[in-house]
Amino acid sequence: MHYPEPISKLIDSFMKLPGIGPKTAARLAFFVLNMKEDTVLDFAKALVNAKRNLTYCSVCGHITDQDPCYICEDTRRNRQIICVVQDPKDVIAMEKMKEFDGLYHVLHGAISPMDGIGPEDINVPSLIKRLQESDVEEVIMATNPNIEGEATAMYISRLLKPSGIKITRIAHGLPVGGDLEYADEVTLSKALEGRREV
Amino acid sequence: MHYPEPISKLIDSFMKLPGIGPKTAARLAFFVLNMKEDTVLDFAKALVNAKRNLTYCSVCGHITDQDPCYICEDTRRNRQIICVVQDPKDVIAMEKMKEFDGLYHVLHGAISPMDGIGPEDINVPSLIKRLQESDVEEVIMATNPNIEGEATAMYISRLLKPSGIKITRIAHGLPVGGDLEYADEVTLSKALEGRREV
Repeated sequence: MHYPEPISKLIDSFMKLPGIGPKTAARLAFFVLNMKEDTVLDFAKALVNAKRNLTYCSVCGHITDQDPCYICEDTRRNRQIICVVQDPKDVIAMEKMKEFDGLYHVLHGAISPMDGIGPEDINVPSLIKRLQESDVEEVIMATNPNIEGEATAMYISRLLKPSGIKITRIAHGLPVGGDLEYADEVTLSKALEGRREV
Repeated sequence: MHYPEPISKLIDSFMKLPGIGPKTAARLAFFVLNMKEDTVLDFAKALVNAKRNLTYCSVCGHITDQDPCYICEDTRRNRQIICVVQDPKDVIAMEKMKEFDGLYHVLHGAISPMDGIGPEDINVPSLIKRLQESDVEEVIMATNPNIEGEATAMYISRLLKPSGIKITRIAHGLPVGGDLEYADEVTLSKALEGRREV
């Protein structure tokens, strides 16, 4: 035992976080020792509160401290459009943009047969049920642009086709500020395919 | 406000740690939400305990949960040698080596006139007092091999010279496993200067 017990326990806790190894954990733990006691208490409270007071919205699956969440509750939003995303963080990314005023549906994952994740394991059934009960006009598939995300978007769009709801997929192409020279072939081909008249 | 309050507070807390920006903080906070409640409670407790139960040893200045610390208390250690280091983490690095069985003195910093840090601002007075009250034979200066560390080692060794205590400085040279080709000139010159007969 090299460290006094209280600090070795703190190091162990930090090491449970992603991307934090023993050296970083020790550095963070020693930093905590030099922080003000109030700040450390706030940190501890924030940890417990975040874990205890946050749940997933029963309507859209977004992370929230009230149910339904503030987005589902907001009467000024367009209830005819639902944007389907994989993760609560995606909702936050969309909200930061401040251009989308519809509602969301968080899948909490993507279909991945390799990992044994099927449509029933993510929030697909609740999406179907929600669409049956409301008069949604458009569903935007905003899953990630990778194999799992594409497969999920494809699966859900086929599932919804008979209902007559308009289903769209966010565009693939070159990121703004990117460099054509460094774009990979698939992105470039998608960008070409999705070209629009100016 | 993009995030529900409990999570934005947790993100703010994570962002107070060194090297953690808004994106990493958000990633860690969302990770915490998916952790088991017990693990999160342990983390919160570890934070508070580390802050509340750890103090600095009144003898050597090392971080400890008992006073004097387990090193100062250990009667099997050689009380004739004191190794002077800048930081509690340095004590831990030395202890990992398992070859030094003397005592330590942690300065908690180094003399740095540029930052307005003088000998009185670090644990130098307590070192002098400690040496006067005990029969120490050797003081090993193990401050960092940079300008501040060298200045501190130099200052303390001049201060202690009249007392007749043997003062040594840890060796400078090439790190084991290092490559001569990539060593900087100063290190190489110190390695040459410190050469020993084999």
